[in-house]
Amino acid sequence: MDKIAYFYFDYVSPYSYLAWRKIKRLKEEKTLDIKLKPVLFAGLLNHWGQLGPAEIPPKRKHMFEQCIRYARLMNIPFQGPKTHPFNPLSALRLSVLNSDAAEQWQLVDALWQGIWGLGIDAADESALEDLVNGAGLDAKSYLSEIKTEDIKEHLKMNTQEAIQNNVFGVPTILVDQKLFWGLGDLVFLNMYLFNKDPLDDQKVAHILNRPKSANRL
Amino acid sequence: MDKIAYFYFDYVSPYSYLAWRKIKRLKEEKTLDIKLKPVLFAGLLNHWGQLGPAEIPPKRKHMFEQCIRYARLMNIPFQGPKTHPFNPLSALRLSVLNSDAAEQWQLVDALWQGIWGLGIDAADESALEDLVNGAGLDAKSYLSEIKTEDIKEHLKMNTQEAIQNNVFGVPTILVDQKLFWGLGDLVFLNMYLFNKDPLDDQKVAHILNRPKSANRL
Repeated sequence: MDKIAYFYFDYVSPYSYLAWRKIKRLKEEKTLDIKLKPVLFAGLLNHWGQLGPAEIPPKRKHMFEQCIRYARLMNIPFQGPKTHPFNPLSALRLSVLNSDAAEQWQLVDALWQGIWGLGIDAADESALEDLVNGAGLDAKSYLSEIKTEDIKEHLKMNTQEAIQNNVFGVPTILVDQKLFWGLGDLVFLNMYLFNKDPLDDQKVAHILNRPKSANRL
Repeated sequence: MDKIAYFYFDYVSPYSYLAWRKIKRLKEEKTLDIKLKPVLFAGLLNHWGQLGPAEIPPKRKHMFEQCIRYARLMNIPFQGPKTHPFNPLSALRLSVLNSDAAEQWQLVDALWQGIWGLGIDAADESALEDLVNGAGLDAKSYLSEIKTEDIKEHLKMNTQEAIQNNVFGVPTILVDQKLFWGLGDLVFLNMYLFNKDPLDDQKVAHILNRPKSANRL
């Protein structure tokens, strides 16, 4: 377990929920030393001037279709949250608390299962309290701590760091300065970790160096 | 071969190029009666207010990385075009000519192989002429015909029709009013065609009917 990887995610993203199982497995198998990096997806979208899939009606429908298919095939519970999009700030701030790593993983796992697996309302503080208690953690102190400036700042820094690392969407796994984005890249991450990545970096650089000959028509 | 499917694509899209092999196979195997629907991807982006992957620098890099990986794994030649993005209008208009279907498929195949497989410049009319001639078709008459209003209008109508059908990106395959978008959905298309689609339409409708509780933060 020498390689360090960073997992960028936001609870509003159902694709991040489906990726979470793989992240847990990579940790359990000690394939990677994974650092959890909750970020505000809206902050990434604002920075890159992009719309999220939930902001384009047919793409929103497609996103849920695709996720429901994946969830069934992967046998992952998928109720979806009570409301969507929802304000994920409390859940994200709970996830950056400076608790020890084991507690952080336990809490993040409980949040994923609760919000997407069972359908609790992440914007409802009492639902979050139940969820944190249910994970065997001290909900009261956790929920008061996320109201501090330190914690708010921590989440902002995570988001800024993601942008500096060229993260444009979630879920993203960063390892050795390589970005693996979305469910589709999980298979490539696996290949990469087993030295079987079919990527040809020189070819990518070569194509990226070519000029463009048209702007948006 | 009772089901009719529509394949929406634009030559600027490397994902559409990689999907093309699958489309050809579905046609060869007579799994579907596929109608080719060249569209202006920029028109879709304009309509939905979205940026394309090539318009966000790190997403552009990611797109080429992903496509080079897929191309290697699928053993598909991938040189990429001489310039990118390029103006695809001539290539798209060549692809909507009212020639017979066999000629259309031949020409579209030649355009895909030429632009992405071999790296010709799709915005260069003499390169296009060589390419059409190479496909055994009458380049001179084809290239004069695409300058007519009829052909320009035909392409615009294709793009409008795509938008009316909720197509938000390319490649998209529309069959039975279901949209399969991108490379990731090709496996679901296959499942659908063999009555093994894991989709639960009621569950999608249920989730889509829930309210949202936040806008972009």
